[in-house]
Order: sequence, then structure tokens, then C-alpha cells
Amino acid sequence: MPTYRAPVRDTAFVIRDVLNFQRFDNMAGFADVSPDVLEAILDEGAKLAENVMQPLNRIGDVEGCKRREDGSVTTPKGFAEAYRQYCEGGWMGLSAPVEYGGQGLPYLVHTAVGEYLSSANMALMMYPGLTQGAIAAILTHGTDEQKSRYLPKMVEGLWTGTMNLTEPHCGTDLGLLRTRAVPDGNGSYKISGQKIFISAGEHDMAENIIHLVLARIEGAPEGTKGISLFIVPKLKLDASGNPAGPNGVSCGSIEEKMGIHGNATCVMNYDEAEGFLLGAENGGLKAMFTMMNEARLGVALQGLAVGEAAYQSAADYARERLQGRSLSGPKAPDRKADPIIVHPDIRRNLMTIRAFNEAGRALLLWTALQSDIAHRSVDEQTRQAAEDHLALMTPVLKGVLTDKGFEHAVMAQQVFGGHGYIEESGMSQFVRDARIAMIYEGANGIQALDLVGRKLAQNGGRAVQAFFKTVGDFCEEHHSDEKMAPYTKALKKGLNDLQAATMWLMQNAIQKPDNAGAASYDYMHLFGLVALGYMWCRMVKVAQDGLAAGGDKGFLEQKLVLGRFFMERAMPETSTHLARISSGADTVMAMPAEVF
Amino acid sequence: MPTYRAPVRDTAFVIRDVLNFQRFDNMAGFADVSPDVLEAILDEGAKLAENVMQPLNRIGDVEGCKRREDGSVTTPKGFAEAYRQYCEGGWMGLSAPVEYGGQGLPYLVHTAVGEYLSSANMALMMYPGLTQGAIAAILTHGTDEQKSRYLPKMVEGLWTGTMNLTEPHCGTDLGLLRTRAVPDGNGSYKISGQKIFISAGEHDMAENIIHLVLARIEGAPEGTKGISLFIVPKLKLDASGNPAGPNGVSCGSIEEKMGIHGNATCVMNYDEAEGFLLGAENGGLKAMFTMMNEARLGVALQGLAVGEAAYQSAADYARERLQGRSLSGPKAPDRKADPIIVHPDIRRNLMTIRAFNEAGRALLLWTALQSDIAHRSVDEQTRQAAEDHLALMTPVLKGVLTDKGFEHAVMAQQVFGGHGYIEESGMSQFVRDARIAMIYEGANGIQALDLVGRKLAQNGGRAVQAFFKTVGDFCEEHHSDEKMAPYTKALKKGLNDLQAATMWLMQNAIQKPDNAGAASYDYMHLFGLVALGYMWCRMVKVAQDGLAAGGDKGFLEQKLVLGRFFMERAMPETSTHLARISSGADTVMAMPAEVF
Repeated sequence: MPTYRAPVRDTAFVIRDVLNFQRFDNMAGFADVSPDVLEAILDEGAKLAENVMQPLNRIGDVEGCKRREDGSVTTPKGFAEAYRQYCEGGWMGLSAPVEYGGQGLPYLVHTAVGEYLSSANMALMMYPGLTQGAIAAILTHGTDEQKSRYLPKMVEGLWTGTMNLTEPHCGTDLGLLRTRAVPDGNGSYKISGQKIFISAGEHDMAENIIHLVLARIEGAPEGTKGISLFIVPKLKLDASGNPAGPNGVSCGSIEEKMGIHGNATCVMNYDEAEGFLLGAENGGLKAMFTMMNEARLGVALQGLAVGEAAYQSAADYARERLQGRSLSGPKAPDRKADPIIVHPDIRRNLMTIRAFNEAGRALLLWTALQSDIAHRSVDEQTRQAAEDHLALMTPVLKGVLTDKGFEHAVMAQQVFGGHGYIEESGMSQFVRDARIAMIYEGANGIQALDLVGRKLAQNGGRAVQAFFKTVGDFCEEHHSDEKMAPYTKALKKGLNDLQAATMWLMQNAIQKPDNAGAASYDYMHLFGLVALGYMWCRMVKVAQDGLAAGGDKGFLEQKLVLGRFFMERAMPETSTHLARISSGADTVMAMPAEVF
Repeated sequence: MPTYRAPVRDTAFVIRDVLNFQRFDNMAGFADVSPDVLEAILDEGAKLAENVMQPLNRIGDVEGCKRREDGSVTTPKGFAEAYRQYCEGGWMGLSAPVEYGGQGLPYLVHTAVGEYLSSANMALMMYPGLTQGAIAAILTHGTDEQKSRYLPKMVEGLWTGTMNLTEPHCGTDLGLLRTRAVPDGNGSYKISGQKIFISAGEHDMAENIIHLVLARIEGAPEGTKGISLFIVPKLKLDASGNPAGPNGVSCGSIEEKMGIHGNATCVMNYDEAEGFLLGAENGGLKAMFTMMNEARLGVALQGLAVGEAAYQSAADYARERLQGRSLSGPKAPDRKADPIIVHPDIRRNLMTIRAFNEAGRALLLWTALQSDIAHRSVDEQTRQAAEDHLALMTPVLKGVLTDKGFEHAVMAQQVFGGHGYIEESGMSQFVRDARIAMIYEGANGIQALDLVGRKLAQNGGRAVQAFFKTVGDFCEEHHSDEKMAPYTKALKKGLNDLQAATMWLMQNAIQKPDNAGAASYDYMHLFGLVALGYMWCRMVKVAQDGLAAGGDKGFLEQKLVLGRFFMERAMPETSTHLARISSGADTVMAMPAEVF
């Protein structure tokens, strides 16, 4: 059975030493978080994850959610109580506005703790995760009345939220959606249609569920231009805002899925349910993207989180399992065999995950900080640069961290040999749970297209040029530093490949968009490697300065080793990606569909 | 629900046109297989796979195997009947010796049909698969009496077989095994101990089960030198060889696994069970490897087979699912959206799998042919060269085809978006089933070590030098052929990287074996790329000759496109592998075990 220890020290290293978050204490919420307070919050989050959430993870997988005949859904044993503790600890509203009952702390801190909680129990954390997305959408697009009607209860966790996009015949292509909204003459709408794959669509953990539903108002234009977003509460509210009677919303069935069994993935039926327009008429897609962008970062975090939990189990197993002898002679001669961590190939697996995760965490936290800056900075130019970063890095983080999170769960499972294939080990669950993160909130192929087709060219390429300059300047600044050169040299090589790929796209994809499509996936991963390599360089620089200043040798030298591993083993992939990208689309498009 | 169509035409192309198997009709069994007979056998195998085995695949996953209180095991509905049809069709003994009731046909043909059957139902095919391994071990190491006692019933399929290696504390490191064998004074032994992860250990499909069990004879040396192999029938045989009474063998429980639910993975308890020495005393490991090598090729085949089945489902779905529009303008303007196969990134996924599978099939069949040559050629030097190839290529095939088979099942699942995560689609089953192939019969890290640590240096590197020469000569021979040059150029670059990596190992791994361990996994995949690239070059050459001779344009041009795709998109990885290999073990070994 897996155990989990939140990597509090690594998180604090990134937030405090690498991102130097105290620099931002002129922004709302940041001044409240001294380094001591930060550590206290991380420690509390760690406790909740380790002691409350993690012990329920396998129970959630084995029990799953059950739909009763009346359409109600029972969550696994212990889930409701753990969720209650989460809400009572104030975690739901950690970074929500104070006026709606939140604590107004940085999203950065929320993200840091979110990793621990998702490592401990991804399926359980999806209930509050979706609620936070719904809170963000109502905050941004709601009227004052809507905000005061829904947000306090949601921030408290008394009500949860959902996102209703997908229908049986449409997922990525929402322009095809059929759910109808008919004005009822009272300013509200009657919503009818079927939605599928609705995470947390029905459950027994909250008093009410606030569904955000995409639908087409009668007579609206076809395609994506005629879609509006609606608030559809499971229970209608009375005049004073308390749940009154049932609305025309019901869970028709629960999907039988590969993983995240602890989360109820529902088919939701809307039968003239009362709904309220959220944001502008026909502006639903834009409003939904407010939720989506934050949700995508949340999914990136799941990838990292499950990969990290799987890594920890594999590292523990590798230290304990005795099998064979070290190639360089026995390391535990008093025992019948050496622990398998003596084998270079076992270490290669473990270090591949660890080196990726530490950089992934840094990139995610850096981006969360940019989200805070985008929302809280008083300087417009600073906000704009942060928004640019956020828009650019969101698809990269979602695509790369979830692809790798799954790949790493598989690697960690492999360390267990046959024992990892047995459900009891818990390693299969990590693999099965991590798999969904590559798919939902926009399958990773869609993330790649978003990056290449929209984000690169936005505002004349301003965001990507800024990123290239940041990385290039760092390499320039440190290239004559003997200790940094081995790192910056590898990073610079990666940056060159990324810039060459970008140039190739500019020259070849505008006339022929299929060249962009055929290049997109490799481009996303190439981008990710450079961004992660850059995070390693920043961490290594801080570690070297720390060592020079007499800091903790053991801890800081690990960073140098892991950074070196990343440069030696991960960065060489950039040239393969570049070669693939510049091979173009001709071969890919050559065969007729029917011979596939 | 997935469907499956056996790729008979592709198989025939490889066996007939690329391997030109008629050249070998001086070998036993080959003369019986004219091109027409070959096609008839492939067609019959295809029918069995498509109509009998495949419809039971999901049933097997959902129902699983059930152990009753008396220790008996029930297999999923329909499995026993399908197995009976398999046996009655003569498939169990297809390549087994005629004197024991087999048909004596080439192992090559057995392998070709085996792919179809495992694509259709991997879990079901493990029952006969393990039996074939046991037949091979008894054929090679059994006394005449043992052969006549067990083989006819096993070749008929009336009795099945198993391999009993693993114990709770030892898998890879069999030197640690504890199962005991005590001579009972009658020439047989009493076997006692516990074995785990025993595939097909107990079931209701056969009259008897012949367990091959590794155990240590009392007083034998410690470690691997004191291990012997025993035949332990589930039911003891009377003097005339018929099942008489129970032996001290029982299934203690069935493991709850991630996949292959249709196969009973048993904990087997031996309590003074009657066993008979197979092969030499203390020669058990060597004897077991007779089974293991063939079993490893069988597992490689599973990787290919499941990847192919998953590919077919994904290709079907991509042709049917309407979502979005082509980047280059609508392709189905009369419909609400285009089928997703218009998108380059969907095609990239599909072609990655297809280009790999066609080369993987060719490499596997070429190696199966070498196995026939090794066993059936009258020329000693020819036999030796074939044995060299077999020994060298077995770990490459096992490691690479199963890693990729899983990766490709995941890719195929991704094409389905959210629908792929729902069990009903069958895509999750492909992923979960394929996962085990990377683990059992020697986890893939062990295959990599076998390749680098044993196979490379064997007989002074004779096998690897012969392989390099074969590939190098091909490139040399065709480099001035304008049509072949784009292919051979990419292959030659890959070969150069592989030779550089081999040289690096010779220079760096002998003094410091950790350098071999840290390089092994990348070396195995680098080797695989070159071997697969070589198969593509051979297939492309045949296709070009065929086109020049007026052959089927549609079919043959596909080979050129897929070969080009492989060269453009897969071969560039060789340089990344070389870079990783030559980074050595220092970084990997730098961190103390406790900080992982």
C-alpha cells in the first residue's frame, strides 16, 4: 500500500528561494504570507493530504461511486467526512476573495497545497477542484446578485460546482452542441438536453450542486457563436437563497471508467431545468474558457501530483526490495541480495521522474505566480506580461505535465515488477488515474494545437518572444560562469532547437496549416523541455549560491545532480523533436483515410 | 466495442515477398507450405481470431476468473469452448513434431497466426501459449519416456502447461528461491513451497495441468547453481499415463490484476507434490531458459498484437467520429463536421503505430524464421548464424515490441478522447492488458541488461557484428539507387549511432559495469530502431521492385509512405539514445539511496 510524504521542503525552496515570492508583498494577499506563514500553511496542507486524504485513495478506487435508483449517488466511504475537513480547514476559499468568505491568499499557495492533496487523492480532490473552476467563472462573469447568491456557499464548500460541456456527439467541437435553452419569460431559461462525462455531477457531499451548463438559446446562431453559459442549480433556491425544491436535473447513470473511480462521472439529463444566463448571451464559450484555463492548470497539477506519488512508492520499494547484486560488487554483503536501488537502470527510472517533477513543480508554481500577478498587480504592463505568460504556458503545462505524469506512473509501476501489476500495490491505480489527465479539459492534442495555432501568433508573437528572451538572457548572463556553463550550454542548445522549430513553423505553416498540425505535438514537448530546462538552471543557480553561502550541502547538491541528469538525459530530445517538426505534413497526409 | 480484422495481406507480404520463405523448402515442414497453403492457413487463423476469440475478449475482461472454495477455478464464459475449437483446429500442435501429434509446420507460420489470435484475445491465448513453452522444454530436456508420457496429450491440448518460477521474495533473482525438492526413493521427488504469479495455474479448460516447477533439491548448492526443474502434474498419472488422483498441488488464490483478467494468475501451493526431474540435477535454470526464450518471443508478439488491435479500433473511430474541420478547409462539407482522421495530429498517432507495427511484424517473423533455421537447417554454420540472431534479437524484440505495444495502446486510446477512458469502448482493456507484457518473462529492464551484459559480448561479439554487417551491406548495396537513398541514408545514420554506442560500451563498460547498466535501456531501444529501420528498408525495396513490375499500386505505395514516416519520425531518436548512453553512470549513481 502506497504512503505519501508531501515534499514541503522542495516546494518552499521553489517559492521562497527560486521565485523569491517576498518580492511581491505589495500585491494583495502576499503580505499576509511571510516565509514562516508559508511553511505553516504547507505543513497544514501536508497533514491533511497525508493523514486524511491519502488513506482514502485506494478505498475510493475499490468502492467507486454508486448510483441508486432514485438517481442519487453515494461516494466512497470516508469521502464526505474528508471533504468536510477540507472545507472546515478553509482550503476551498484559500485564494478566493475575502468578501465572499475566502482568505484572499495567493493562488500560488493554493497551487502548492493543491499538489499535495491531488497526490494523496486525485479523485476526491476533483470535487472541490471543479467547484473552484465554477467559482472563478461566476466571479468573472456573474452579476453582483449572482455572486452574492452563489459564491459564499461555494467558497464555504457547502455547495459544489460542475462544468457541463460534453454531449455524446461533441466534445472538442462544441459548435455541434444541442442542449437547448428556452426563455421562460421570468428572466430565466428552461434548459433541456443531455451532457456526458460530468465529473462530480451528482454526489452526497454537498447540500446543493451548481451546474454550469453550455446550451444554445432558441434561435441563436449555429456553431460556437450561438452558445451561452447557464447556472443550473440542482436544487432551486428560494427568495432568500436557500435550497427549496428539485430542479429538472438528474443523473442518468455513472460511467464505468478506467480510473478515478472515487469521482462520480455522470450522464446528466436536463429536462426543462431552471437556468440563469451567466455572462453575455451567446458569449458562453468565452465565459467557459475562464473556467477552462484555470481547470487546465489544475489538470497539469494532477499530472505532476500523481507522478510524484507514484515516484515515492517506487523509491520506497527500490530501497526495500532485495534482488540481485550490484554490477560493481555487493552493496549489502550481509544480506541475501542488494536492494534494487543499487541498479543503474532502476535509478535511471527514478531520476527521470524526480528530475522532471522538480522542474515541473517549479514551472507550475512560477506560472501560478504569474496568475497572481495578472490578477493582482497594480501595474498594467506587469499584468499584461503575466497574462501573456499564463496564456502561453497553460497548454504547455497541461499537455506536458499530464503526458509525463502518466508516463512516470508507468515507470514507477515498472520498478515493482510483477507486484506492480497487482491492484493491491496501488501502482495500477496511479497509472489508471493519471491516464484521464491526458484527456479531459481538452485532450493533449488540442493543447498542442492551442499552443501552435493560437498562442504562438497572439499579439504578434509577443508572449513567445518574451519567453525566448528570458531564457536567452539567462544563458547569456551565466555562460562565463564555470559552474553554470554545463547547464546553460545544454539549455541554450535546446533553446536554439525551439527557436529553429518556431522559425520553421513561421515559414511553413501559414501557407499550409497541416504543417502546423503535424508539428504541434512535438512542438509542445520541445517547448516543455526548454521551459523545464530553464527552471532547472534557475534552481541550480540558487543551489550554487546557497552552497557558496554555506547552505545545506546535502539538500542543495541533490539539485545539482538532478539538474545535471535533466541536461544529460532529457534535453537531448530537443533535436529529435526538431527533426520531426521539420519533416512536415506531406507524409502524414499522403495516405487516403480508407487504408488506415 | 472493438472489432478486429487479421492483417493477412501484410503478413503474406512479409513471409512471401520480403522473407521469400520458399527459398527454405529444403527444410523440414517448409515444403508443405506452398504460397497457397500459407494463405489458406493464415485465412483459417484469421477466422478463428475474428469470429471465435475476439468476441470473448471483453467478456474475459469483465467476468475474469473465479476461484471456488475447493480451489478450482472457473474461466470466463465461452473460453473453454473457444479453447476446444483452437485445439480441434490443430493450432496447438501447428509447429510441434509430427511424432507427438503435431503438424511439424514452420514456427514462422505458428508465429504469424499467433499474432492474430493474441490480437483477438490475449488473455485466452495465454493458456495455449504457456502450454507451448512447456512442450518446448519437455521436447528439449525430457527423457524419451517423459516425452511420450506428456507430449501427445499436451500437443492435442487435452493437458495444458505452466511455468513456476516466481516466489514472493524472488522474481528476477531466482538464486533466492526456496521451494524444496526431497527425493522420495522411487526416483521422484516431493515438492514443497509457494509460487506466485502463475499464469494459467488452475482452470477448467483441460483435463490435466502439467506444471514445470523450479525447486532446490535438498543439499543442493545455494544460488542459481542449485536449482532444478521438475514436472509436477496437477493430477498424478497412473501406469498407463491417465490422470488418476490428486497431487499435492493447489491454487491458493487468484491475483487481482490490472488486466488480462481472463487469465487466471494463481498463487500455487506445493505440499509434498510428486514431481519428476526434467533435465539435469541442478540444471534447472538452463532448462527453464529453453522455455523462457520462446516465451519471450511470444510476449513480444503480444505487444505487437495488442498494439495492432488497438490501432484498428482507433483507425475505425477516426474515420467515423465527426468533430471539427480540417485545417485546410472542410473535407466533408455536406456533414456537420469532418471525420477526425483529417487532422494531421490524429494521423501522426495512427501512423506512428502502423509504421512501427509493420516493421515489428517483419522483424518478429524474420526472427521466427531464424528459429526454424536454427532447429531445422542441415548446415551447421547456417544453424549457428541463426542461433546467434535468435539470441541477440530475443531481448530486443521482447523489450521494444512490448514497450511500444503499450505506448501504442495508449496512443490509440487517446484518439477516442473521453470515450476511450470508458471501459465500454474496450480501449482501456487494451492498455491494461498490454501493460503486463512489459513486465513478465523478465521485466524489460532485464531484457536490456541481457542484451548489453550478455548478448553483445557472446562469442566475441559475433552476433552483433554479423547484424551490423547485414545492415551495413544493405545500405552500401542500395545507396546509389536514387529511390532507395532516402531510406538507406536514414538507416545508415541510425546504424552509425548504434555502432558508436557499441564502441562507447566497449570502451567504458568493461572497467565500470555501471556504465553498461545506465546505458542498457537506451541501447535496447536504439538497437530496436535500427533493426526496425532495416526491416522497413527491405520492405520498401520489395515494394519498389513490385511497383516497377506492375504490382498493386495502392498496396505497395502505402509501404513507401509508411517507411518514409518511420525514417522521418522514428529514426531521429537514435541520436538522443546515443547522447544518453554516452552520458554514462556518474550522475545516475551520485545520489545516496536514502534521498530518493
